[in-house]
Amino acid sequence: MVIKTKTLEEKARDLLTSRGVSIEAIGELVLFLQKEYIEGITLEQCIESVNSVLTKREVHNTIITGVQLDLLAEAGQLGDPLQEIVSEDEGLYGIDEILALSIVNVYGSIGFTNYGYIDKVKPGILEKLNAHNGKDVHTFLDDIVGAIAAAAASRLAHQHPHKSKDITQ
Amino acid sequence: MVIKTKTLEEKARDLLTSRGVSIEAIGELVLFLQKEYIEGITLEQCIESVNSVLTKREVHNTIITGVQLDLLAEAGQLGDPLQEIVSEDEGLYGIDEILALSIVNVYGSIGFTNYGYIDKVKPGILEKLNAHNGKDVHTFLDDIVGAIAAAAASRLAHQHPHKSKDITQ
Amino acid sequence: MVIKTKTLEEKARDLLTSRGVSIEAIGELVLFLQKEYIEGITLEQCIESVNSVLTKREVHNTIITGVQLDLLAEAGQLGDPLQEIVSEDEGLYGIDEILALSIVNVYGSIGFTNYGYIDKVKPGILEKLNAHNGKDVHTFLDDIVGAIAAAAASRLAHQHPHKSKDITQ
Amino acid sequence: MVIKTKTLEEKARDLLTSRGVSIEAIGELVLFLQKEYIEGITLEQCIESVNSVLTKREVHNTIITGVQLDLLAEAGQLGDPLQEIVSEDEGLYGIDEILALSIVNVYGSIGFTNYGYIDKVKPGILEKLNAHNGKDVHTFLDDIVGAIAAAAASRLAHQHPHKSKDITQ
Repeated sequence: MVIKTKTLEEKARDLLTSRGVSIEAIGELVLFLQKEYIEGITLEQCIESVNSVLTKREVHNTIITGVQLDLLAEAGQLGDPLQEIVSEDEGLYGIDEILALSIVNVYGSIGFTNYGYIDKVKPGILEKLNAHNGKDVHTFLDDIVGAIAAAAASRLAHQHPHKSKDITQ
Repeated sequence: MVIKTKTLEEKARDLLTSRGVSIEAIGELVLFLQKEYIEGITLEQCIESVNSVLTKREVHNTIITGVQLDLLAEAGQLGDPLQEIVSEDEGLYGIDEILALSIVNVYGSIGFTNYGYIDKVKPGILEKLNAHNGKDVHTFLDDIVGAIAAAAASRLAHQHPHKSKDITQ
Repeated sequence: MVIKTKTLEEKARDLLTSRGVSIEAIGELVLFLQKEYIEGITLEQCIESVNSVLTKREVHNTIITGVQLDLLAEAGQLGDPLQEIVSEDEGLYGIDEILALSIVNVYGSIGFTNYGYIDKVKPGILEKLNAHNGKDVHTFLDDIVGAIAAAAASRLAHQHPHKSKDITQ
Repeated sequence: MVIKTKTLEEKARDLLTSRGVSIEAIGELVLFLQKEYIEGITLEQCIESVNSVLTKREVHNTIITGVQLDLLAEAGQLGDPLQEIVSEDEGLYGIDEILALSIVNVYGSIGFTNYGYIDKVKPGILEKLNAHNGKDVHTFLDDIVGAIAAAAASRLAHQHPHKSKDITQ
């Protein structure tokens, strides 16, 4: 049995909501990334682009896998040393970045730059997710949210080619 | 705290053993892939190359993450629909391939072809791992083992450039 | 100025034709890959899927870049040692695989296996492209054509989830 | 005939020099990326890490391919529309990012973030390469130089795990 795409999308959206990530908050990351490049861009357009990214099966699969690992780490249910690595968001782990990249790829390689930039600068919701308060674990989710924003930004750039000449130069 | 590489390697090797995958079995996959290209290649050289791949931190992290997800699926401890997807090795999931590719990449892009080929033909240990007997779950492990073999084959090709001209043509 | 997608697609299709690769020949590769998995699949469906892959900007850019390098190598106009590497399709080069993977990625990671498999087995048009007759250079094109077929196969698998359960297991 | 790695490395280093990129300038990018994370890091350590990245065959192949395309675009010798795309560094092209990523991957996925960040902020030599003065074309080279720096930074992080806990969080 293959899970229906609609079922996957609902589950992925529920997980984002339950972990404190609204579509609007991701839309604001897209606006942060694109406002210098696409003249007159609105938050509504950014949110629409996020919603479009969230129709893709690869994106659903990455969300439900990454958030599952975050949840298991919060509950202390991973084996050692994975439990320690994920709950502490160890800097050399790298599997979170690999999953994120599978989302960035959905709209092509021009999203790499935006993903890396936003993951380093951590504006808006990314700062909250990355707070490491000792209770919540968002090792996978923060990279996933940044990747969704980067993919949505790439999608907008593809739709507005004449306004977005300098995006990845 | 960053986990020591030695600790990670021991854990990764223990997981392979406990899931029924010997280093020799992976070495035989490497031999299957390279015997036509590198004249006089021995199983010992293939095993040595597998051991070298198994010193890499990216490889350890992928093994401990992938096998953890297989184990949780066996125990029925993943949330739905991830539980169903991983336990049934759903064909459209794709996260197993993404993790595997992070191993293939360790010795460069010339491993892609070998990875895809061995994952389709499924010789030796890969056939066993892929048996889907309704009890054991190896959704991640079979792709990981194929990826280790492909990386070890790439490493041998890089070491024997004059004997391996036609590897990826 | 950003080139129009329509202009890019026309150029990419012209290059395929001028290098002896018909859409039907790529469609036959897709059929070769999917006929065991999707019951009742026709060559027409495969060709339609190839045409859909050929609307993507990433695919156009890869085709026009890869074929340009093949053409320059045929004309002896690359600097050394790149001239020798591309004209001889050196096995350790790897840049051809990297470009190909950017096409495979367009429909997600489930295409990796098909790409690797077809690149190794080389059915149909791939055998011709890989003939190395000492005159024609298809170092990039053969990997690109295999990648287009693998992406088109992934797209079909996504469209027929209930018929394609075992695609990447 | 496979080209010797030593020959490739010499050619790759010559191309960097002839295009105005010194090893020290790349080392300064590494220092820019890592000084906040690795206490007491020196420019000498950064340069040593760049030199180590420059021993890898994948890196040589990417440099000689990318710079060749830049040189051909400068000389007006690419076919249309590739000539226009490369000479104007079109924002939706993406092949430059794909080649760069093959370098970043050499030391694992933790380099993605650094690559994206440096490609956006463009410190030091990257600003010069990206000047678009209407004469020099560095469409590929600027991404390649950023990728070498990101890979060298990842390598340092792997060597100093206890000092670099927060690198990719």
